[in-house]
Amino acid sequence: MGCYDRDADSVEFGRFVTLTDGVFAIALTLLVLDLALPEQAAALPLAQALAETGPRFFAFVISVAVVGTFFLSHHEFVAMLQKVDGGLLGLSIPYLGLIVLIPFAQSVLGEGSGEPLAFALYGALLGFTSIAAAVMLWHAHRRGLLREPLTGFEARLEVARTGVPIVLFGSSAGLALVIGEWVVLFWVAIWPIDAVLARLERRAV
Amino acid sequence: MGCYDRDADSVEFGRFVTLTDGVFAIALTLLVLDLALPEQAAALPLAQALAETGPRFFAFVISVAVVGTFFLSHHEFVAMLQKVDGGLLGLSIPYLGLIVLIPFAQSVLGEGSGEPLAFALYGALLGFTSIAAAVMLWHAHRRGLLREPLTGFEARLEVARTGVPIVLFGSSAGLALVIGEWVVLFWVAIWPIDAVLARLERRAV
Amino acid sequence: MGCYDRDADSVEFGRFVTLTDGVFAIALTLLVLDLALPEQAAALPLAQALAETGPRFFAFVISVAVVGTFFLSHHEFVAMLQKVDGGLLGLSIPYLGLIVLIPFAQSVLGEGSGEPLAFALYGALLGFTSIAAAVMLWHAHRRGLLREPLTGFEARLEVARTGVPIVLFGSSAGLALVIGEWVVLFWVAIWPIDAVLARLERRAV
Amino acid sequence: MGCYDRDADSVEFGRFVTLTDGVFAIALTLLVLDLALPEQAAALPLAQALAETGPRFFAFVISVAVVGTFFLSHHEFVAMLQKVDGGLLGLSIPYLGLIVLIPFAQSVLGEGSGEPLAFALYGALLGFTSIAAAVMLWHAHRRGLLREPLTGFEARLEVARTGVPIVLFGSSAGLALVIGEWVVLFWVAIWPIDAVLARLERRAV
Repeated sequence: MGCYDRDADSVEFGRFVTLTDGVFAIALTLLVLDLALPEQAAALPLAQALAETGPRFFAFVISVAVVGTFFLSHHEFVAMLQKVDGGLLGLSIPYLGLIVLIPFAQSVLGEGSGEPLAFALYGALLGFTSIAAAVMLWHAHRRGLLREPLTGFEARLEVARTGVPIVLFGSSAGLALVIGEWVVLFWVAIWPIDAVLARLERRAV
Repeated sequence: MGCYDRDADSVEFGRFVTLTDGVFAIALTLLVLDLALPEQAAALPLAQALAETGPRFFAFVISVAVVGTFFLSHHEFVAMLQKVDGGLLGLSIPYLGLIVLIPFAQSVLGEGSGEPLAFALYGALLGFTSIAAAVMLWHAHRRGLLREPLTGFEARLEVARTGVPIVLFGSSAGLALVIGEWVVLFWVAIWPIDAVLARLERRAV
Repeated sequence: MGCYDRDADSVEFGRFVTLTDGVFAIALTLLVLDLALPEQAAALPLAQALAETGPRFFAFVISVAVVGTFFLSHHEFVAMLQKVDGGLLGLSIPYLGLIVLIPFAQSVLGEGSGEPLAFALYGALLGFTSIAAAVMLWHAHRRGLLREPLTGFEARLEVARTGVPIVLFGSSAGLALVIGEWVVLFWVAIWPIDAVLARLERRAV
Repeated sequence: MGCYDRDADSVEFGRFVTLTDGVFAIALTLLVLDLALPEQAAALPLAQALAETGPRFFAFVISVAVVGTFFLSHHEFVAMLQKVDGGLLGLSIPYLGLIVLIPFAQSVLGEGSGEPLAFALYGALLGFTSIAAAVMLWHAHRRGLLREPLTGFEARLEVARTGVPIVLFGSSAGLALVIGEWVVLFWVAIWPIDAVLARLERRAV
């Protein structure tokens, strides 16, 4: 497979983005399927049936935020790309395979039993997805697919921004077995940390 | 994250639209899943099984109209945009999270028990979605992302068009607890009111 | 809402197409959900469980062909368009609402009981969808949204191509109550008839 | 239907790609639905419930790789196209109908009973999908839709790359009845073989 330029081969470059956006849109929408009222709901007063969806609603909100964060970060990645090659297209398949697992991990999380294993599974999935994203960035950097080569301070910041979620999510997988649902605080910590790094990056440019 | 121009950064601007359109397309399509014949349908004559989907079919039609209205209104919003920034991309995640909840609220509505709480929930969801849309418009206005700054009469009309669904849907959530299914008339009232405001706006331009 | 040109407002024109393509893609994909093996499948030998999906597989093939035909015909319609206005966007919402009903009608058809009512329902849905498509063409013609105004022989051919599915599908709804599953022959007749009209049209141009 | 050029009729050419990408994105995402924990999961410890999804997780990974491979190969096909005509649009409907069957074949495979018939079905589906892809390439070649006509060595290589999956997947369907799950090795063999052919092709150009 060749190498496709953002401007000269807009259809080929575009499909890389369209497939990804499609998967994100569907993953986001599938999250809601897990909210369906329990089958015996007809027998319960509606207020009580809704109350029972509580933990699943919590898992839904977390997952919308998580999928959204991965989308924003993929958007930033593509904004740095000038070209896409066969290797990057190929790497995006396992990345998307991990993204579509998020609704599954969410449904495990929302079962409501609150077992630490469910949180560990979710954290591990987020860790692996972050690794897949880092591999794509690394490939693009190595093959000269970026608009401007990363250099010096910028490059180190980019490594930090890629590494933080790997460390945070990865370690959360192990920690979850000990601290259970409190591990969610680790996942949420990604936003303030990334915001600080993004501000540093903008100042550097 | 940077700021992406409609013409100069067409891929980046486009993804903001593609993700949204994807979510709208899937939300629209998921609405039909709720129509599935009841499991014991095989035991019933088909005509009777279909008759029992009556309330769910009603909820389906309402929801197609509601999702369609939000799509048309988002289309109009984007038509006013020259640029999209990281903030607007970020704000669209909770907005889309609310849009994908519509099939869930529809399934609650279509359970057929006709409890006022189901209508209140649906109305509240529409109210929150309208607020999220208004926040996106406000952000775009404040950050100078619009093609032409809104001024004077135009701006007041735009505020009215944004505020009407918030007030109408929001108040319907409370009212539903009192008047039950009649609250649908409030939801439907949005079309003639918006049509009048749109006509005023076109005359003003 | 304004009027959006294919070239000057490519984002706005494009969303009309993207939403539609998204709904077609999802409707096409949802068709497969109905094929799921019966729950008691685990208890049956696989060959027997598969054999029981026979009527549902037949309904799946019919539906892929039907959704595909509507896609091709919508593609031809858009190829004739220079502009899209708010009215056409609005009309596409009920059209898409009818398209997403096809997987539902398919699941009714595939229940396997072979009741004539299921065929009548399916035929009626196809008839209404064809009417919605005809209304969109009529609107585009009236508001001058077409690239070249239809005239004389061409226009009459276009009316014929729009009218044939309405008559064929519409009448099939009634006939199904009498002749049952044979009505499928009516649905299939659309391809040779349309091919002849398309050939006539190409010769006329 | 006319003939649409990649550059001059970008909307019409684009829809051919958008519909396909949409179906690929949804097929990829539907694969995860099959992973849902068994209904009696609430009664089991989570670790045990997860362990029971083992065979289905294996089927999920195979299917992500398979759908991804077909996507990459369709991407390469479109990169060779200058134009799309009504015939190619029409041929893509049965092709997409086969793609959406993959989640169904996966669910049959993942039932866990490990019957050879399930592997034969999956292999046969991959064989038919490869044939549909070959027919599209053949049509494009015959009607002069390719950017550059295939000639000599290049053409023979392209035939080989198209033929390998047909032979490999097709023969796997029969073999599965004898060797059962070992047939997966045949499916996996497609990657090294195609990589060699792709390298030869690149050298030839």
